[in-house]
Order: sequence, then C-alpha cells, then structure tokens
Amino acid sequence: MLINGTQYRSVWWEDDCLCMIDQNKLPFEFSIVRLETYQQVAEAIRHMTVRGAPAIGAAGAYGLAMAARVAPDGSFRSFIREAKEFLASTRPTAIDLYNALEFVYDEVLKFIPNYDHARQVALLSAEDFVRDSAAECLALGEHGADLIEDGDRILTHCNAGALATVDWGTALSPIRLAHRQGKKIFVYVDETRPRFQGARLTAFELEQEGIPHAIITDAAAGYFFWKREIDLVIVGADRICLNGDIANKIGTYEKAVLAKEHKVPFWVAAPLSTFDLNCPSGEKIPIEYRDETEIKQYNGQALSNPGSSALNPGFDITPADYITGIITPKGVFLPKEASQKVQI
Amino acid sequence: MLINGTQYRSVWWEDDCLCMIDQNKLPFEFSIVRLETYQQVAEAIRHMTVRGAPAIGAAGAYGLAMAARVAPDGSFRSFIREAKEFLASTRPTAIDLYNALEFVYDEVLKFIPNYDHARQVALLSAEDFVRDSAAECLALGEHGADLIEDGDRILTHCNAGALATVDWGTALSPIRLAHRQGKKIFVYVDETRPRFQGARLTAFELEQEGIPHAIITDAAAGYFFWKREIDLVIVGADRICLNGDIANKIGTYEKAVLAKEHKVPFWVAAPLSTFDLNCPSGEKIPIEYRDETEIKQYNGQALSNPGSSALNPGFDITPADYITGIITPKGVFLPKEASQKVQI
Repeated sequence: MLINGTQYRSVWWEDDCLCMIDQNKLPFEFSIVRLETYQQVAEAIRHMTVRGAPAIGAAGAYGLAMAARVAPDGSFRSFIREAKEFLASTRPTAIDLYNALEFVYDEVLKFIPNYDHARQVALLSAEDFVRDSAAECLALGEHGADLIEDGDRILTHCNAGALATVDWGTALSPIRLAHRQGKKIFVYVDETRPRFQGARLTAFELEQEGIPHAIITDAAAGYFFWKREIDLVIVGADRICLNGDIANKIGTYEKAVLAKEHKVPFWVAAPLSTFDLNCPSGEKIPIEYRDETEIKQYNGQALSNPGSSALNPGFDITPADYITGIITPKGVFLPKEASQKVQI
Repeated sequence: MLINGTQYRSVWWEDDCLCMIDQNKLPFEFSIVRLETYQQVAEAIRHMTVRGAPAIGAAGAYGLAMAARVAPDGSFRSFIREAKEFLASTRPTAIDLYNALEFVYDEVLKFIPNYDHARQVALLSAEDFVRDSAAECLALGEHGADLIEDGDRILTHCNAGALATVDWGTALSPIRLAHRQGKKIFVYVDETRPRFQGARLTAFELEQEGIPHAIITDAAAGYFFWKREIDLVIVGADRICLNGDIANKIGTYEKAVLAKEHKVPFWVAAPLSTFDLNCPSGEKIPIEYRDETEIKQYNGQALSNPGSSALNPGFDITPADYITGIITPKGVFLPKEASQKVQI
C-alpha cells in the first residue's frame, strides 16, 4: 500500500525483528513498532497495534517463528505448542490467526528433532504464509474489481484494507483495483464504533490512494440506502463457516439486512485463511466481548453516562442468506459453496 | 422527571426568564441556563442546549412570548412574525417547533391592536401549550405501557425522554410507566452517534429512574436482534406525515428494518404537536445536514482521518410500512390512520 508515496506492508520481517505499522496511532501519527519476542507480538495483537484478521494471522505466524527461535532443545515441542496457544488466545473470533499458527506449527514439527533446522523452517514457513496472504489479496481484488461498475457508490464497514491484511486488503482490494482501472467510484465509509477503524484507517487508506469517499456514522447507512445512493456493499470477514455464514466486525449484520431489504448486492471478500473448515455455522463462532471502556470513553474522556454500563460485542454473525457472494483468490462463489470451491 | 431526587422539567418559566437544563453538559454536569431574550432562545435551540422535538417546541413557544414582550406597538405584527420565522429557522426537521410557534402566534393575533393584552396572551398561550405537552406525554405513556410486558427487553434510539419533552418523554414515557407498574424490563440504549444522546441522556434518565439498561453502539443492535434478545422497539419522532411516515434521529430507519426482519414490534411514540397535517409523506420532509465536525471530532479531539470529509444527515425517514403503531395521547393507532385519529 502507498503511504505518503512509499510502499508499505502492514507487517514485515527486518533485521531479525517483526516490524509493524502502529495502527492505534494512525491516522494521526505514522510510526513503526519493532518487536523482538513472541510475547511482544501477543501483546501487539491483544492491544490492536496490529488488527484485521489476515494481518493478525501474519503477525501470529512470525510470532511463532520467534518462539521457535528461543525454544530450548530439551522441551522444544511443548514450548512451541504453548507459545502457539498463547498467541492464539489473544483474539478468539478471527480464524486466520489460528490457521496461520497451525500452518507454521505443522511445518516445524516435521523437522524435530533437528531443532536448528526446525527454527529456520519456522521463519521460512511464516514468510511463505505471509507472501501467499498478500498474493491472495491481490488475486481476490482482481476477481472483485469485475463486480464494480463505473459510477458505483460502494458502502464498506470497518477496515478491511491493506492495513488489515499484509497488503492490498480484502474489501478494499477490489475497490483499489477498480479505481486503478479508471472506474469512477465513491465509497461511503462507516466510521465503525467503538474503535473508529473506518473513520481512522479506511478513510486514511482511501485518501492515500486518491479514491473519493466520505465518512458516515454507522447508523446513517440506512438513510443512504433509502435515498438509493448505495449500489453495492463490500466487507471483509473474520471467519467463514462451512454453510457460508460469516463473522465480521460488529455492525456488519445490520448492513447485510439493509442491503437485502433494498435489493443491493452484499459481497464478502476474504483470503483462504479466513475459511474455517471445522465450523459448521455462525452459531458456533465464539463472539469476543471487549471492555466497555471502548464504548464509554475516548482517549480517557467520558462519552457516556458514568453510572451506566455498556455491552461491547466485537463481532456479529451474518447468515449466508444475506450474502450475495464471497470474493476469494480463487473466484467469486455463492456463500454455501465457497468452502468447497476454495479447496479445489 | 426525577434528577438527584428532585422533580424537574426540561424547560420552565421562572422570574420572567425561560429556564432550561443545559443538555450539552449532561450527564457530566447538571446546570440550569436562564434566558432573557428570544434571540438567546434561538441560540439555545440551534446549539442544542435544549433538544428533542417537543422540548424545542416548548422553548419556541416561550421564545415567541418573549419576542411579544419587546415588540414595539408600531410594528407589533411584523416584529412577532419575523421573530416566529427566526425561531422556526433554528431546526428545520422537527414539526413541533413550527406547530408551537403557530399556536402562540395565532392566539396573539386575536388581540391586536390591544398590544398589552396580546403580550400577556402570548405568555399564557405558551404556558398552555407547555402544560398540554407534558399532559400528552403522560397520557401516551399510559397507553404505551400497556404494550410492554413483564420481562420485555426494549431497544430505544437517541433520547426521546423527559429531557426531549417538557416531562415524561415520548419513547421513555411508556418505559418509565411500565417500570413504575412493577414490570421487570431491560432497555438496550443505542449510543446514538454523532452526539451520543442515547449514551449521555437516555442512559442518565434510566439510571435516575432505576431502570436496568445497557448502552450499546448503534450498529450492535443487529447482533442482539439476531440473538433474539430484543422484544420490542420504541422510538420518538420529529415529524409524522399524513401517510404515517416519520422523521426521527439518524439511525432510526435501520432499527425499523431490523425489527421488520426479526418480526419484532416497532412502536413510535409522539404527542399531537409532532403530527404534520400538511405533509403527505416522508419524501417531503427536509432533512437537516449538520456540520461534519460533529462526526470528526469530540470535544476538539480528532476522531477520524483529518484529510477525509464526512456526511452528517441529522435525521432519516422511516416509512409507515415499518411501523407497528403510533403511540399517541389519544391511543395507539396504525401509522396510516394516526393523523386522522388524533384529530377526532
């Protein structure tokens, strides 16, 4: 992605460290964090220095490689297994992190008891995972750009951009490519309470790319649907089930219901790591409840009545029936068929 | 309404001044503003020191009486007509303000050229209007409380409480009365971006009344619908058209679409002054676009990407088809019939 004219990825390996753009500081400050231990990686995921399902997966893959680097020969296997579980526990809803960790873990196990080789393989397989993840986002963007017509007004929710992935983005990859193809588009950006990822990160990415857009409050989308000013919706996903149900940022489901009511296509864009082949349906996805402080305060300033509590689910479930299609690196599929199609 | 154990109204006349609770400072500070001129009243409406359609109407009625007080005999009629138009221009979407101003204006005109008497009548008719407004909210609350069952979980949006009216509230009046009847209820409070009237004012009123509740982000309601944890929705209105369409705070329409999708009743509560007998349908209602700063900043702190603009419609339209019924002081009516029924 372009930031101030320079190409960046959300996370990358450099000088034996995991580097990442600090997404809690964007768009007000552009700074890069260097992490030296897998515990620091876990902390960065938990505190959302890095966020977005595929980007978290990439960070986790590197994190496990960093754990392998310091795993003692005598307890190598149990050490990296525990590190994997520790990293996986940081964010329970997105499946990409789990899939990334399993990928690196399985590769490493093959080389035990050749521990030094296993350590090298850990890093190489993390790099493989991350390179493939970026390539998948580009591929899904190419499929998705075909769904966008000149003049389309597009609604997106949260940040499913290059920042949320290794590069290109999921929902933003088709938008980015359609714009580069010369299609005139306009993007309505849900601000995405409580953490404002839309207003902060998606708006930042669109501005950097020169794509016309406006921020709206989350509940204002209905008004623009009613005015027939939204032609399609594209969102990302944190997990895709076998039956085509998805989990994504809280508020996604409302947009899907509105899209159905207004007969507007609702597309979900995701790389292969977002598919959970063990999860039959949305009811089985654990929904992370985050701290109420995210709703009640902003930078320490009170936003709401101090004597009231808040409920803060971080994600919601959008059933397959509301989804027009899933945009993947292998093509665009009906939600109920996508899990099978991506395995071919 | 009870605030810290004392009975208050949102606006009241005292010592030749219009007094009002400063709603921009709630819930963090409870302070009372005293206004001495109708220009100050217009400013208070524009800056939302007082907000909520019926409360604005009450403030406007007093404001016009204050204008009559200083209208010179030589240009009495034109002076108060201009004051009426000046006051009406402060908020274009809600009809209550317009209706309140017309009510006082029509009464005053009857006594021209007996100017001193006209000035007294202006204040008396403002007091009549305000007393009736409070009585109507109590009456609609009694009708609406019958729609709430023991154990119900209720969703509301924005603040349609006692603060938004003279007293009792519109959406909150049935909730308040159901609670006083001993029904065990729980209220999901949409925070209501961009100005947080739900998180600040509704949550404050519910806490003061001892009603169990939780604040949620606006786009989280869909998740609780999906979990079947919302039994009914009650909202207020800023304008009700002849065909039953309503205008209300931005975000209302999304809740109506969700309620329909989940077969949950969607009730609108409003006093008689909210009916616009000259407006055939929602398409004819002017929608106020407010400053983008409301979305982009909070207390001067940036919330969003500085280089992006925001679109900030203050209201949306909910078509009659999405509304189960309108709770009025005269009973609960189907939306398409309500305008006729309230005139009987």
